[in-house]
Amino acid sequence: MEKFTIDQIKTWDRFYRGNFINSLSGFKSVSLIGTANSEGIPNLAIFSNIVHLGADPALIGFINRPIEAAPHTLENIRDTKSYTINHIHFDIYKQAHQTSAKYPKGCSEFEKTGLTPIWQTPIHSPFVAESRIRYALQLEEIIPIRQNNTFFVIGSITHVFLDKALLDKDGFINIDQANSLTSLGIDGYYRTEIISRLPYAKANSN
Amino acid sequence: MEKFTIDQIKTWDRFYRGNFINSLSGFKSVSLIGTANSEGIPNLAIFSNIVHLGADPALIGFINRPIEAAPHTLENIRDTKSYTINHIHFDIYKQAHQTSAKYPKGCSEFEKTGLTPIWQTPIHSPFVAESRIRYALQLEEIIPIRQNNTFFVIGSITHVFLDKALLDKDGFINIDQANSLTSLGIDGYYRTEIISRLPYAKANSN
Repeated sequence: MEKFTIDQIKTWDRFYRGNFINSLSGFKSVSLIGTANSEGIPNLAIFSNIVHLGADPALIGFINRPIEAAPHTLENIRDTKSYTINHIHFDIYKQAHQTSAKYPKGCSEFEKTGLTPIWQTPIHSPFVAESRIRYALQLEEIIPIRQNNTFFVIGSITHVFLDKALLDKDGFINIDQANSLTSLGIDGYYRTEIISRLPYAKANSN
Repeated sequence: MEKFTIDQIKTWDRFYRGNFINSLSGFKSVSLIGTANSEGIPNLAIFSNIVHLGADPALIGFINRPIEAAPHTLENIRDTKSYTINHIHFDIYKQAHQTSAKYPKGCSEFEKTGLTPIWQTPIHSPFVAESRIRYALQLEEIIPIRQNNTFFVIGSITHVFLDKALLDKDGFINIDQANSLTSLGIDGYYRTEIISRLPYAKANSN
């Protein structure tokens, strides 16, 4: 096993270091975030750093890069308090990745990538019609991360859309059966295969 | 496609709702976090909500549940500023899951699960010897999430240990080749299979 210290890592080329650190923390919940500005012009962007915060209330967090690097989604969420999160499956992962290109403000990634916006009253933001698992959120809070000017965005779930056949008896969603992908680093996409669900761990069980 | 509103979801049984919301946000970077208290007594716990915050400085965030539910890791990090994150592969995933049992304070999950602590000077916290990709962090900040009393814990990477054979030419780490797993919900474990790495997306490419 090789040891790397941060002092070594800091000397690396920026792209090499970016790939290394981005993939070190493991597989991510890659998804498309749909928003619209106050005039209804839609925006779509791929995000991978999405976390579960709690089920009651039902809260999800995601990391938004510094505002200069990724302004449109965050501005729309700040202005409208609304966004959607849409799972990515194999048939749309290339289009999903393409949303990471730097399109000018007001230019719809839906049009550019061929993904289809759909609107569900009363939700302000568009969903991705091709996505098989999608949910809407209302902004709770945008927490600035002072260490590197990123943002931790917290939202509460308001609506969920998915095929009932994906649900286990106990509420678990078999997202692999919808072919939802996971990502690694900034450009790696992966299929998954279930190993198992394990029983609740008890202190006296071994 | 079925529509579920939050008003419906709120009426569900607590466990059903927990499984549903926990799996909705997708695959996670499940890993073991190693800490030790100021007297050096080790603690090990499984965490799945881990995000990449940035590569320069190299920052990772994770979500810690409310302090009543999961006190030991957070207390040790607060007191010592040190922790390690250790990837989980197929051969240790059952032991890793078992660390989620509620053991009494001061009881080492290493002993209880048979995983092996190893210590690397000058790092205060133990690593998991069986883990194939592991890294050490220094605490930067613990941000309380007021909406549900969870915590967003930010650390900077200080040391990384992995087999050099996992590294691509551009710094990308093929963690699937170390059999690192991903998780879904509170109890689902998955293998991954790479589809592809995609080129950097450019605005004029389609």
